[in-house]
Amino acid sequence: MSSVFGERIRISVFGQSHGLKIGCVLDGLPAGEEVDEEALYRYMARRAPGKTGATARRETDLPHIVSGLMEGKTCGAPLCVLIDNADAHSGDYAQFQDIPRPGHADYPAHVKWNGFQDYRGGGHFSARLTAPVCAAGGILAQMFARRGIMIGAHVLRAGTAQDTPFDPMNVSDQELSLLAEHYPQTLSEQAGKEMLLQAEKARALGDSIGGVVECAVLHLPAGLGEPMFDGLENRLAQAVFAVPAVKGLEFGEGFAAAGLTGSVNNDAYRMKDGRVTLSSNHAGGILGGLSTGAPVIFRAAFKPTPSIAQPQLSVSLSRGENAELSIRGRHDPCVALRAAPCVEAAAAIALADFIL
Amino acid sequence: MSSVFGERIRISVFGQSHGLKIGCVLDGLPAGEEVDEEALYRYMARRAPGKTGATARRETDLPHIVSGLMEGKTCGAPLCVLIDNADAHSGDYAQFQDIPRPGHADYPAHVKWNGFQDYRGGGHFSARLTAPVCAAGGILAQMFARRGIMIGAHVLRAGTAQDTPFDPMNVSDQELSLLAEHYPQTLSEQAGKEMLLQAEKARALGDSIGGVVECAVLHLPAGLGEPMFDGLENRLAQAVFAVPAVKGLEFGEGFAAAGLTGSVNNDAYRMKDGRVTLSSNHAGGILGGLSTGAPVIFRAAFKPTPSIAQPQLSVSLSRGENAELSIRGRHDPCVALRAAPCVEAAAAIALADFIL
Amino acid sequence: MSSVFGERIRISVFGQSHGLKIGCVLDGLPAGEEVDEEALYRYMARRAPGKTGATARRETDLPHIVSGLMEGKTCGAPLCVLIDNADAHSGDYAQFQDIPRPGHADYPAHVKWNGFQDYRGGGHFSARLTAPVCAAGGILAQMFARRGIMIGAHVLRAGTAQDTPFDPMNVSDQELSLLAEHYPQTLSEQAGKEMLLQAEKARALGDSIGGVVECAVLHLPAGLGEPMFDGLENRLAQAVFAVPAVKGLEFGEGFAAAGLTGSVNNDAYRMKDGRVTLSSNHAGGILGGLSTGAPVIFRAAFKPTPSIAQPQLSVSLSRGENAELSIRGRHDPCVALRAAPCVEAAAAIALADFIL
Amino acid sequence: MSSVFGERIRISVFGQSHGLKIGCVLDGLPAGEEVDEEALYRYMARRAPGKTGATARRETDLPHIVSGLMEGKTCGAPLCVLIDNADAHSGDYAQFQDIPRPGHADYPAHVKWNGFQDYRGGGHFSARLTAPVCAAGGILAQMFARRGIMIGAHVLRAGTAQDTPFDPMNVSDQELSLLAEHYPQTLSEQAGKEMLLQAEKARALGDSIGGVVECAVLHLPAGLGEPMFDGLENRLAQAVFAVPAVKGLEFGEGFAAAGLTGSVNNDAYRMKDGRVTLSSNHAGGILGGLSTGAPVIFRAAFKPTPSIAQPQLSVSLSRGENAELSIRGRHDPCVALRAAPCVEAAAAIALADFIL
Repeated sequence: MSSVFGERIRISVFGQSHGLKIGCVLDGLPAGEEVDEEALYRYMARRAPGKTGATARRETDLPHIVSGLMEGKTCGAPLCVLIDNADAHSGDYAQFQDIPRPGHADYPAHVKWNGFQDYRGGGHFSARLTAPVCAAGGILAQMFARRGIMIGAHVLRAGTAQDTPFDPMNVSDQELSLLAEHYPQTLSEQAGKEMLLQAEKARALGDSIGGVVECAVLHLPAGLGEPMFDGLENRLAQAVFAVPAVKGLEFGEGFAAAGLTGSVNNDAYRMKDGRVTLSSNHAGGILGGLSTGAPVIFRAAFKPTPSIAQPQLSVSLSRGENAELSIRGRHDPCVALRAAPCVEAAAAIALADFIL
Repeated sequence: MSSVFGERIRISVFGQSHGLKIGCVLDGLPAGEEVDEEALYRYMARRAPGKTGATARRETDLPHIVSGLMEGKTCGAPLCVLIDNADAHSGDYAQFQDIPRPGHADYPAHVKWNGFQDYRGGGHFSARLTAPVCAAGGILAQMFARRGIMIGAHVLRAGTAQDTPFDPMNVSDQELSLLAEHYPQTLSEQAGKEMLLQAEKARALGDSIGGVVECAVLHLPAGLGEPMFDGLENRLAQAVFAVPAVKGLEFGEGFAAAGLTGSVNNDAYRMKDGRVTLSSNHAGGILGGLSTGAPVIFRAAFKPTPSIAQPQLSVSLSRGENAELSIRGRHDPCVALRAAPCVEAAAAIALADFIL
Repeated sequence: MSSVFGERIRISVFGQSHGLKIGCVLDGLPAGEEVDEEALYRYMARRAPGKTGATARRETDLPHIVSGLMEGKTCGAPLCVLIDNADAHSGDYAQFQDIPRPGHADYPAHVKWNGFQDYRGGGHFSARLTAPVCAAGGILAQMFARRGIMIGAHVLRAGTAQDTPFDPMNVSDQELSLLAEHYPQTLSEQAGKEMLLQAEKARALGDSIGGVVECAVLHLPAGLGEPMFDGLENRLAQAVFAVPAVKGLEFGEGFAAAGLTGSVNNDAYRMKDGRVTLSSNHAGGILGGLSTGAPVIFRAAFKPTPSIAQPQLSVSLSRGENAELSIRGRHDPCVALRAAPCVEAAAAIALADFIL
Repeated sequence: MSSVFGERIRISVFGQSHGLKIGCVLDGLPAGEEVDEEALYRYMARRAPGKTGATARRETDLPHIVSGLMEGKTCGAPLCVLIDNADAHSGDYAQFQDIPRPGHADYPAHVKWNGFQDYRGGGHFSARLTAPVCAAGGILAQMFARRGIMIGAHVLRAGTAQDTPFDPMNVSDQELSLLAEHYPQTLSEQAGKEMLLQAEKARALGDSIGGVVECAVLHLPAGLGEPMFDGLENRLAQAVFAVPAVKGLEFGEGFAAAGLTGSVNNDAYRMKDGRVTLSSNHAGGILGGLSTGAPVIFRAAFKPTPSIAQPQLSVSLSRGENAELSIRGRHDPCVALRAAPCVEAAAAIALADFIL
């Protein structure tokens, strides 16, 4: 157990922030599925830095598929994607071997692995690992699209800046397609600009901000999912909490449902063109862990980037005494801004067992 | 996949609301652990109805352990707990075979299983299935206690009534022990009374209310959990979303973290009595999926009970036309009020692989 | 991990030889499948003692299905089968708490579980646990039959008595159906009589004999299975070695293939009535872990029953000194004679993920 | 499910015979374990061709560890090993897209994957994939050695040539160490020479021979393993049948046990120097799926290499008619001769969950 997900389709993610390569293996994919490597690269580029508001470090992140394909199509064998870690500067992180960064996994990883963890840039816990997660998600998304299923996410909130929420009854394919062309991924361009502004302000103060990403899965047929521990909510949660910095997750009305009455929160059924439809979507498209046929809607809360320039209180593990640390280097002031494709990818990983 | 959870320790839950028996199998338990059946019964009784604010139906819910014990102690063999379904009134539910209840799994289950689902009282999706979940959780909790680990939950919110939140740095064993003796499980007795009042008011209107349950896990050593898909957050989420009506989950600051800055949200490390400690607990005791040594704190949002007396709009599946339905019978106006032990049990199930 | 098998369809087996109940849970079964409880009982009765050559103890072994059915058909919910342990005589086994029986799991189980194992009749390791295995297999076999797939086994050898081997190209449904009506399950009635005779002779000497069971799976379409660790051979092996006393397993020519040349052992392909067929079946219907379309044929070797009346050398675990023991009571002088339905059931469990 | 093995420690194998890279990911390894890459290379070289009796093709098979290490030691993150496929000649295999090779997985893979399988050299089913299996096994073996556990195998039989069997009570570390230095791995040098001779004779006739590999695992403490489906036999079987060409597997006396009496086959216990020991080892070190403390001994039967130069009968899948094929190129006339390290590696993979 750990960095492997799924039952019929198994995704195994490997690599550390400053290791030689990072990547993933997808086992159990259907055969005969074309993989468009150019489209995959574009998918992954959406999470890559090099833009305002994101880190200045350049990561080309070109995915290399080294197995599982035959003449551009899946051949039934496990598919392995590799990504090089081109220009990592390990030196920046040397002090963190001894002084754990607040808000990162440094300290519990040190305890878990008796000091043998890769402390450089967070090692296997680094947000860098969202690159192979997005590689897996991007490949799966291409297969989902062939089956009419579309996943898209937007940054609903960053700091105090708010994007227009999805209309849970009427999210459209076009909306999701357009989102993928913007950075940050927002429905309102104005909101996106405001988010970048707030992020830059936080960075100027040596600080960071959090945010919320909202995700929609369209055209899932009703009845997908399994009861109890393998419902769509359970599986989506297991996958989405794998995206670093996620601290909350809610489906449909989510926490707001706790303040509603049943007569408001229940979604009535109505016949429409001979088919059963829902007249509202408070449930976020899931009842009892199973899809209702309405769009699946969920939101993930991201904490503010823990790496901040301001001096912070910590301890020296070797000397057993209090210490201070300052994190230099280039860090996103708001991970949520880059996180939309990561959430989409996690959702794709979660749903692969049910769709493919 | 479905109603089985875990890797080393596997919990398999079975039964339907109106079937002959419900129960669970716990496979892989350590041997030589005493199981106090009286204490188990008290644990399970906390979720059982028969009290103000809960359904008037009497369920004795006596658990019978039919395997896995030898002279009162676990013997390494899988432990099976059975619970009889004493006085189910199937008749109450006959109409729901044709007219799915809004907010329940009736419709997607009908689609998934081609009309062969057990429609009586929600079948396998019924909140009745929290009885075996609590049986499993109660047995695990006894083993955790022997290792110094304690789990407790309280109803933080029901309707608009609020309980005092846990102090994430100072939740105490005594607090959790006391909670287990109250119904509903609240820290403030006054808040509990107000919750019952609001629930009764909703019932009088043929309606229902939602709520939030907050849970704490105390004395987990630092470094428990696995990276990425099997972190504590991922596993807790997979288990807690198995409790019916949960629509949201957050750890530590959760969604509030999205509105904080990094300098506030990061928890500083300090040496204290020669040990590394945290000077705050915004992270809810988890970083990178691993325990930090601080209390694990999370909150689960419960939607309002979908079974309400008011007439609701639905469809007739057999006739393919719109229909109305009224749900008679005895239903909790607020499932959150009974849910605290269920959340505790789900947490125990999630943590078994890491603790035992 | 331990007494749970499968991925999509999970079978969890529980119980001890002298516990209150034994049983199994089948999770993930398709819905709408009729379960003929009468036929299930007949399936299970084939492994039950009460006949010449088998133990004189009477086990009614009536299976009670307590969940997962709705009006006689599977409803998608996990199906639990319970069997009572009616008249166990725990007293017979008391000495084995201290003096482990040679050839049984007593000693390693004592070490594994620090003395807390259920030592009565082998506890969870008892051949008694083949009853729930057969219950699971019998239910699955009914579903397989609806899909045209048939599993049957015969006792190929007991002591030195030999039954006619299956013709790997021409095993027929009728042959398999007839086998199910005989005890022991042999193709040649004469061979069966000789086997019983040899078993009785061994018993008279306070000894026991081994045997070989051969199993055929008919009408599996070509291409079932998964590469590498989840091929049909891998999965069948994982399940069949769960039947107590199995010490060897071979597919097709098996160990004999080691003595053949490639030109003899390779099965040529030929077109026949427009379909690809095999002109021989040395491979036992499996290549690379995948079904070829020819009958799947395998053989399991059973060691002689370890419980024998002759005095045996052992040790006293409490006193740490050498000891002797004599096993009284009623024991099969040849477990292979009753094992055919158990092997069939294990095969059904192994194949469920691929067929259903 | 497919090319992933294990629960706590998960091994995911990927690649095709003529793909860009082959490799594996080991997830869940303990941290702080040194990996001696030079020793790993030597381990893997034992299965590599380039010697008499093996194929003339040169595969350098240098393993590159691209993640999971930090300064030469495991760091808790998943460990990925890559191997380049240097000089594959895809042209040799083009005809097999249409005409399946008898004895290979070509035909069932064609059916399973609708013609999209990688047909070049058997794709994912190729014996080439034993390279990453050996990489995984070699890494695990280093960790086992640190815990005093040793695995070694020899070619017991090839054609009619026989090596001296292991003495199941007295296999020694030195014996196993020496084996690793010979090709083929035999206890008797004379037997090894005879095996090579028989293999070359078969090759000269355009034919091939089979063989048997015997494996020993030394110093496993008593009580390892899990009951029923996850016993040592079950897990070893699931892993060993992943080695191409294995068609049979037996533990201890195995099939011979079917011909013994219980009084002979049972292994008596005796106290020796204050410890419980076995006075014989017919059980091959396993009872009820659990280790007894005696050496674990098992034998795997290998069929003759299916690739032979003699013309063979097959079919043209595209034309739906009978066809002939001749397999040119360089092929082992006896896969068993190279298989000893592969069986050792499969055993290591099977045991990782229990030992590490």
